[in-house]
Amino acid sequence: MTSPGRPPLGVGLIGYAFMGAAHSHAWRTAPRFFDLPLEPRLAVLAGRNRSAVTEAAGRLGWAATETDWRQAIERDDVDLVDVCTPGDTHAEIAIAALEAGKHVLCEKPLANSVAEAEAMAEAAAKAAARGVRSMVGFTYRRVPAIGLARRLVAEGRLGEIRHVRAQYLQDWIADPAAPMSWRLEKDKAGSGALGDIGAHIVDLTQHITGQALTGVSALLETFVTERPLPAETGKLGGVGGAETGQVTVDDAAVFLGRFTGGAVGVFEATRFALGRKNAIRIEINGSAGSLAFDFEDMNVLHFFDGSEPAEVGGFRRIVVTEPEHPYVGAWWPAGHGLGYEHGFTHQVVDLVTAIGTGEDPSPSFADGLQIQRVLDAVERSATADSVWTPIPR
Amino acid sequence: MTSPGRPPLGVGLIGYAFMGAAHSHAWRTAPRFFDLPLEPRLAVLAGRNRSAVTEAAGRLGWAATETDWRQAIERDDVDLVDVCTPGDTHAEIAIAALEAGKHVLCEKPLANSVAEAEAMAEAAAKAAARGVRSMVGFTYRRVPAIGLARRLVAEGRLGEIRHVRAQYLQDWIADPAAPMSWRLEKDKAGSGALGDIGAHIVDLTQHITGQALTGVSALLETFVTERPLPAETGKLGGVGGAETGQVTVDDAAVFLGRFTGGAVGVFEATRFALGRKNAIRIEINGSAGSLAFDFEDMNVLHFFDGSEPAEVGGFRRIVVTEPEHPYVGAWWPAGHGLGYEHGFTHQVVDLVTAIGTGEDPSPSFADGLQIQRVLDAVERSATADSVWTPIPR
Amino acid sequence: MTSPGRPPLGVGLIGYAFMGAAHSHAWRTAPRFFDLPLEPRLAVLAGRNRSAVTEAAGRLGWAATETDWRQAIERDDVDLVDVCTPGDTHAEIAIAALEAGKHVLCEKPLANSVAEAEAMAEAAAKAAARGVRSMVGFTYRRVPAIGLARRLVAEGRLGEIRHVRAQYLQDWIADPAAPMSWRLEKDKAGSGALGDIGAHIVDLTQHITGQALTGVSALLETFVTERPLPAETGKLGGVGGAETGQVTVDDAAVFLGRFTGGAVGVFEATRFALGRKNAIRIEINGSAGSLAFDFEDMNVLHFFDGSEPAEVGGFRRIVVTEPEHPYVGAWWPAGHGLGYEHGFTHQVVDLVTAIGTGEDPSPSFADGLQIQRVLDAVERSATADSVWTPIPR
Amino acid sequence: MTSPGRPPLGVGLIGYAFMGAAHSHAWRTAPRFFDLPLEPRLAVLAGRNRSAVTEAAGRLGWAATETDWRQAIERDDVDLVDVCTPGDTHAEIAIAALEAGKHVLCEKPLANSVAEAEAMAEAAAKAAARGVRSMVGFTYRRVPAIGLARRLVAEGRLGEIRHVRAQYLQDWIADPAAPMSWRLEKDKAGSGALGDIGAHIVDLTQHITGQALTGVSALLETFVTERPLPAETGKLGGVGGAETGQVTVDDAAVFLGRFTGGAVGVFEATRFALGRKNAIRIEINGSAGSLAFDFEDMNVLHFFDGSEPAEVGGFRRIVVTEPEHPYVGAWWPAGHGLGYEHGFTHQVVDLVTAIGTGEDPSPSFADGLQIQRVLDAVERSATADSVWTPIPR
Repeated sequence: MTSPGRPPLGVGLIGYAFMGAAHSHAWRTAPRFFDLPLEPRLAVLAGRNRSAVTEAAGRLGWAATETDWRQAIERDDVDLVDVCTPGDTHAEIAIAALEAGKHVLCEKPLANSVAEAEAMAEAAAKAAARGVRSMVGFTYRRVPAIGLARRLVAEGRLGEIRHVRAQYLQDWIADPAAPMSWRLEKDKAGSGALGDIGAHIVDLTQHITGQALTGVSALLETFVTERPLPAETGKLGGVGGAETGQVTVDDAAVFLGRFTGGAVGVFEATRFALGRKNAIRIEINGSAGSLAFDFEDMNVLHFFDGSEPAEVGGFRRIVVTEPEHPYVGAWWPAGHGLGYEHGFTHQVVDLVTAIGTGEDPSPSFADGLQIQRVLDAVERSATADSVWTPIPR
Repeated sequence: MTSPGRPPLGVGLIGYAFMGAAHSHAWRTAPRFFDLPLEPRLAVLAGRNRSAVTEAAGRLGWAATETDWRQAIERDDVDLVDVCTPGDTHAEIAIAALEAGKHVLCEKPLANSVAEAEAMAEAAAKAAARGVRSMVGFTYRRVPAIGLARRLVAEGRLGEIRHVRAQYLQDWIADPAAPMSWRLEKDKAGSGALGDIGAHIVDLTQHITGQALTGVSALLETFVTERPLPAETGKLGGVGGAETGQVTVDDAAVFLGRFTGGAVGVFEATRFALGRKNAIRIEINGSAGSLAFDFEDMNVLHFFDGSEPAEVGGFRRIVVTEPEHPYVGAWWPAGHGLGYEHGFTHQVVDLVTAIGTGEDPSPSFADGLQIQRVLDAVERSATADSVWTPIPR
Repeated sequence: MTSPGRPPLGVGLIGYAFMGAAHSHAWRTAPRFFDLPLEPRLAVLAGRNRSAVTEAAGRLGWAATETDWRQAIERDDVDLVDVCTPGDTHAEIAIAALEAGKHVLCEKPLANSVAEAEAMAEAAAKAAARGVRSMVGFTYRRVPAIGLARRLVAEGRLGEIRHVRAQYLQDWIADPAAPMSWRLEKDKAGSGALGDIGAHIVDLTQHITGQALTGVSALLETFVTERPLPAETGKLGGVGGAETGQVTVDDAAVFLGRFTGGAVGVFEATRFALGRKNAIRIEINGSAGSLAFDFEDMNVLHFFDGSEPAEVGGFRRIVVTEPEHPYVGAWWPAGHGLGYEHGFTHQVVDLVTAIGTGEDPSPSFADGLQIQRVLDAVERSATADSVWTPIPR
Repeated sequence: MTSPGRPPLGVGLIGYAFMGAAHSHAWRTAPRFFDLPLEPRLAVLAGRNRSAVTEAAGRLGWAATETDWRQAIERDDVDLVDVCTPGDTHAEIAIAALEAGKHVLCEKPLANSVAEAEAMAEAAAKAAARGVRSMVGFTYRRVPAIGLARRLVAEGRLGEIRHVRAQYLQDWIADPAAPMSWRLEKDKAGSGALGDIGAHIVDLTQHITGQALTGVSALLETFVTERPLPAETGKLGGVGGAETGQVTVDDAAVFLGRFTGGAVGVFEATRFALGRKNAIRIEINGSAGSLAFDFEDMNVLHFFDGSEPAEVGGFRRIVVTEPEHPYVGAWWPAGHGLGYEHGFTHQVVDLVTAIGTGEDPSPSFADGLQIQRVLDAVERSATADSVWTPIPR
C-alpha cells in the first residue's frame, strides 16, 4: 500500500468494458502520482457474466467480483460505487448506491432522460445532506489544457465571451456497412451522437466559460437508418450481415445556442466526420482574447492575447506540460505529454480529494441534470422545425 | 500591348477603393501570365470625386476618368463594366450597363435585397440572349485550393457528402471602440457579417459540393449596438468619438442548413472572432473522403482519402502549387505560393475566356440571386425564433 | 495478481528519481493492458538514503527496499535488475547483476565511456550464452509513431534513404542563472546534451532507417561555462547563487553524418532551444517517400507517399492511434492519444516477452556500445577541428 | 503613367525565363502599390533568340527588345540593368553595365566563383563613388515575415543568439529519371543545391541575425551522378533518355557553422527532400526568445517570447499581414496573404527608393561576395574531410 496511515476508500466498480478499463487504471494510478487524503482500494468488480468478470478483475486488478451489482453495493468493503454501465441503468444503480450510503461516481451522460436525471439529482441532494458525495464523469474537464482554458477565462484574459464553437467529430460508423450496436438503439443509449459525444462539448463549453446555455435551435440527422446485425446476434444464426437492424438514434446533432453571458454558440457532434477519430475542438472568442483546443493535439492550448501589439500578436501554441499547469506537476518534466487516460486519473484525484475534505465534488448530479436538459431541448427543437427552445433552469 | 493580334476588351471600372484596387491589379496582370482571347484595356475609372478618381486612375493604371458612372457606361471604348461600389448601387449600375449592351462583372453580394437581385438576374438573362455576359464576383472560388476541392468532389473522391462546416472569421470590429462605417448601416450595406462574408461561405460550400442549400435555421447577433462616429463625420465638428451612431446590421450570423444531396451544414460568419483576421475555414466530410481548407493557409488543401488502409490513412497536406492544380501552371514553379489577389486575376481570366468563347461565365447573376435568397432566409429565420426556413428555388 | 498461472518475474529497481518513477509505472501497468508470458512483481527498490527509498517504495508500489544495490541484486526474489542510476554507475551495477545471473534493463546512455560500454557488452554476451537477457532503455523506440516509421521504411515505402535530419531540442538551461546539477559535470554525466539527448536521436534514426552511422563531423558548444551552485550545496552554507561551479559538459552538440546505406544525416542536440521543451524531431527523405515526426505531437506521424499523383500528393498526418499501429491495440479506441510514459510500458512488454520466449531483446548492450562509439566519434571530431571521424564497427 | 511628375527610371532586363518573368512583374507592379521616387519604365528586354525575346517582351510588357545584351546596356533609355541570366554570365554583364554608368540589379548568387565576385564587388565600389548603385537579388529578404524576424532580433527580443538552423528543401530531381539541365553542370551553374538554394539560407540567416558566418564544416553529396539527356538535346536525335549526361554539381549540401556573435548554425540545402517543394525553414533560438519560419507558410512567423510566464508561454503564430508589418501596409487588409512574387516587388521598391534617395541599396555586391566566400569555404571543407574552414573577411 502506498501510505498505510491513510484511511482506505473501498471502491466497487460496475461494468468492465472500455470505461471500466479506464476507471480501473485511474484508481490504480492516482495514488502513485498524487497525494490523496484517502487510499483507494480496488475492492470489487461487478458484471453479469461470471467468467468474464473474473477474467476482467484479474486483468484490471480488482480483489473480488460480484455478478449482481446489488451485492456489490451492499458490501462492507465498498465505500464508493463507480458506475460504468450503459446509460439506461445509471439511475437505478446510482440511486440505490446513494441510498445505501455509498459515494457515487457515475459515467456520463448522467441518464437517458430528464426524468431519470431529476430522480438522480434529487437522490444526490438527499445523500449530500448525509455527507455522501456524488459526481458525474465528464472526464475531459480534467485534461490539463481544458483546465488551463477555464483558468484563463476565469482570470478575465478573454474578457467578455462572444463566440463559442465546439465540435466533437468521430467517424466510426461513417461506413454504412458498420454493424449495429447497442449505441445505435434509442432504448439502450438514449440518443446517438448527441448524448454520447455532444454531451461532452456541452459540458466543456459551459465549464470553460462558466456560463450555461439558455436555449438552442437544433437539427438531428440519421444518415444510415438500417445496418447489418453483427453475425453473433443474428436471430437465426445465419450469415452475419444478411439481417439488418434499425438505427433509432441520431448519427449527427448540430445546434445553435446562447449562453447566459450573451455568447453565441455553434455545436456539432457526429460519428460521420471521415478521418476525424476523436476530435474535440473548442474555440472561444472574447473581447480580450481567444482560445482554441483540439483533442487530437490534447497537450496544447492555443491562446490569443488581444492586449499584444498587432505586430507581434498571434495565437500562442502553449504546450500544456509545465509544472504551473493544472495536474501536470505530479507527472513528468516539461514537454513530456500526457495521454487520454490521464483525465480519468485526475478525476479520481479530484473526487477522492473532495470526499476526504468533505466537499461536494464537481460536476455534480445537478450539473449532469442540467446537461440532460440541454440535450432534451436539442431533441425537442429538432422535432419542432428547429424552433428556438429555451432550456429550463 | 501584349498581343496586338487580339481584339481589345475595353473595361470601365466603377469604384476605386479596396475592391477597385484589387480588380485593377487583376485587369493589368491577367494578360501577362495567361493566354486570353481578348486584350483587356483599362479604359476608364469612374468615381464621384474628381481629384480622388484622377489620383486613383494614375496610380492604378487607368487611361481616363469619369465622375458619373452613367458616362462611363456610355463610352465607346468600354465593352465591359466592372462594378466595385457598395451594394446599394449594384442593381442600378449593373442593369443600366447590361441594357447598354456592356458585359458586367459585379462584386458580391449581388444586391442588398432579393427584389434587387431578381431584377438584376432578369436583366442578365435578357442580355445573355443578346450575347452580353454577366458574372458576380465570388472571387474565392478562384483560389487554386478551392478549385481543387471542387474537382475532388466532382470526381467522386468524397463519395456522398454528409457534413459541411464553414466559418468566415474576422475581428476588425471586436473592439467596441472601433468607429462606425457604412458597412455597419443596413441601408447601405444590406446586412453585416451575413452579406459581407457569410455570402462567401454560402457560395463556396455550394460551389465545392455542387449542391444547393434547401433551408436554414439561423440566429443573428449584434454585440455592440452603438459605436463612436469617426471624427470627420461628426455633424457639429466636435471631438471624434463624442457622438455615437447606431449599428443596424448583424455583427455575427450563425445558421444550420441542409443541402440538396442530404448533407447537413453549419455556418458561422463573424467580425468578432478576436485573433482571426480573414479565416475562411471549410470542411467537408463525405462517405469516401474529407476535405479541409483555411484561407489563413490559402495554398494548402487537406484531403483525407477513406480508401487508404487505416495504418497509413491521414489528412494529406496538399500544397496546391503544382502545375496540375487549377490556375497554377501559369505562375511559378511548385512550392512558390500565391496570394490573395491572384483570385481576382483568375476571375478576369475566366470571365474574358467566357466572353471570348461566347459562353456564359459562372457564377451568373442567377447564382448571385440564389445566394441572396439564402441570406434572406437566414434573416427571416433569425427573426422567427430560428424556425426552419426553406429557400425558394 | 492478474494471472496466477503465469510464472513471476521479480524486479529489483535501482534508483527512484525521474526514471525510477517512469519505470515503476511501466512495471505496474504493462500486465494490466498486455498479455505477458511472465508476471512482473515489484520486488525491491534500492537507494542509498533509507528514509527516501522507503517513502518512494510506498509511493511507487515496491514490496521491499534496500539501501545497497548489491543487496538488491543478491535477493532471491529478484530475477531482473532495472538500472535507473546516473551513467557513471551503470557499468558496475549492470555487470554485477549479469554475473549474478539476473536479467538487466539499463537506462541509456549505456555508459559514460566506450571502455565501460565495451565491458558491459562483453558481460551481456557472456550472460546471453547462459540465457540471461539484457537491454538498454532507448524508450522512444516504443512510441507507436516511431514504430510505424520503422515499419514503413522496412516495407520499402520510402525507397532508398537519402536524408536524415534529427533534432532533440530542450531549453531547461537556456537561462544562464539556472543552477549547476550533476548533469553538467563531466565526471558524473559523461557528456552534456550529447549523451543525454543526442544519444536518443542517434538511436532513433538508426532504428528507423535500419542503417548505422559510419562517420561524423561535429562541433560541441558550451554557451554558459559557469553557473550558480544550488543553495543547499554551497560549501559554506552561504546564500545560494553566491558561489558558482564550472560547467564541464557540452550545452549543445551538432554534427553531420553518413549512414551505411548512403544517406546524409544532420543532427542537433541542445538544451538552449528556448521554447522547445522536449522536441524530438526526425525527418527522413527517401527516393519513394518521406517521414516527419515531432515528439511535441507524439501521436502523429507525417508520411509523404511519392507514388501519389502530384495533384493529390502531400504529407499525410497519420494519427497513430489505430488498432493496426504498433502497441496501440492494447489501449483505447482510435483517436485517444497516448502519453510519454506509454513508451516505458511498451519497453516492459517487449522485454518481458523476449525473456519469456527466450530471445534476446533489442536494443542490446552491443547496440548501446555502438551508440557510445558514435558519441565518442562526435567528441573526437569536435576536438579535432570537426574533421571527418569514422565510427569503428 | 502613374505619376507624370516623377523622373523616369529606364530598365533593361537581360534574360526572360523564370527570373525574368518575376522581375518583369515586379517592375510593372511596384509603382501601382508603392510610392516611388522614380518612375520605372520597362524599356528593353534582351535575349539571344529574336523570336523568343519578341514574344516574351510582348507578354511581359517591355517596350523594345535587343538580341545582344551589350546593345541593351548602351541604350540611352536604359538607366538600370537587371541581370537575370545564368550565373556564369553575371560578372561580365554586371561589370560592363556598371562601367557604362548604369545601376545594376543582379540575381543571386552573385557569381560562380569568388574571383568573379571579387571583380564585381570592386566594380561596384568604383561605380558607387560615381553615384551608380548596385544590388544583388536575395529576394527572400523582402518576405514580410523575414523582415519582421530581422526587426525582432534587432530590437533585442531574442537576446543573445545561440542557435541557427536553416534548411532549404526541394525535391525536383529526387527522381533519378529526371533529365539533365544546365543547373546540373558545374561550368554553367557553379554549384548545385549549394549555390542555387544554399546561398539563400546563408543570406537569410546572416540578414536576420545581423551576424556573419566565421567558419564552416561541410559535406556535399551527389546522389545521382548520371541522368538522361532531354530528348531534344540528344546528339543523334534518338529517343530521349537513351543517352545520359554527367551530373557535376552537388545534389545536397549540409554544413555546420559559427557566427560572429557566438551562435552555432546547422545548414542543409537539397533537391532530394521528397515532398518538400520550396521549404525554406529557419529557426533562431536566443537567450530571450526564439523564431521559426517556413516558406511553405510564408505569411506566418512563429515567435516565442521568453519573458512570458511559463503558464501562458508558447510560440505565437503571427500572421504577418498587419499594416504594422514590413511592406504590408501597401497591399490588402489584415489576413489577406501575399505570395511568392511580392518579394520581387518589394525588392524593386527598396532598390528604386535607394537610387532615388542616393543611398547604396542592400544587399550590396560586397555582401554577395561575402556569401560567395561562405559557399567557397563549404566546398573547400567538403573536399578536405569536412575540416573546419574559416571564412576570409
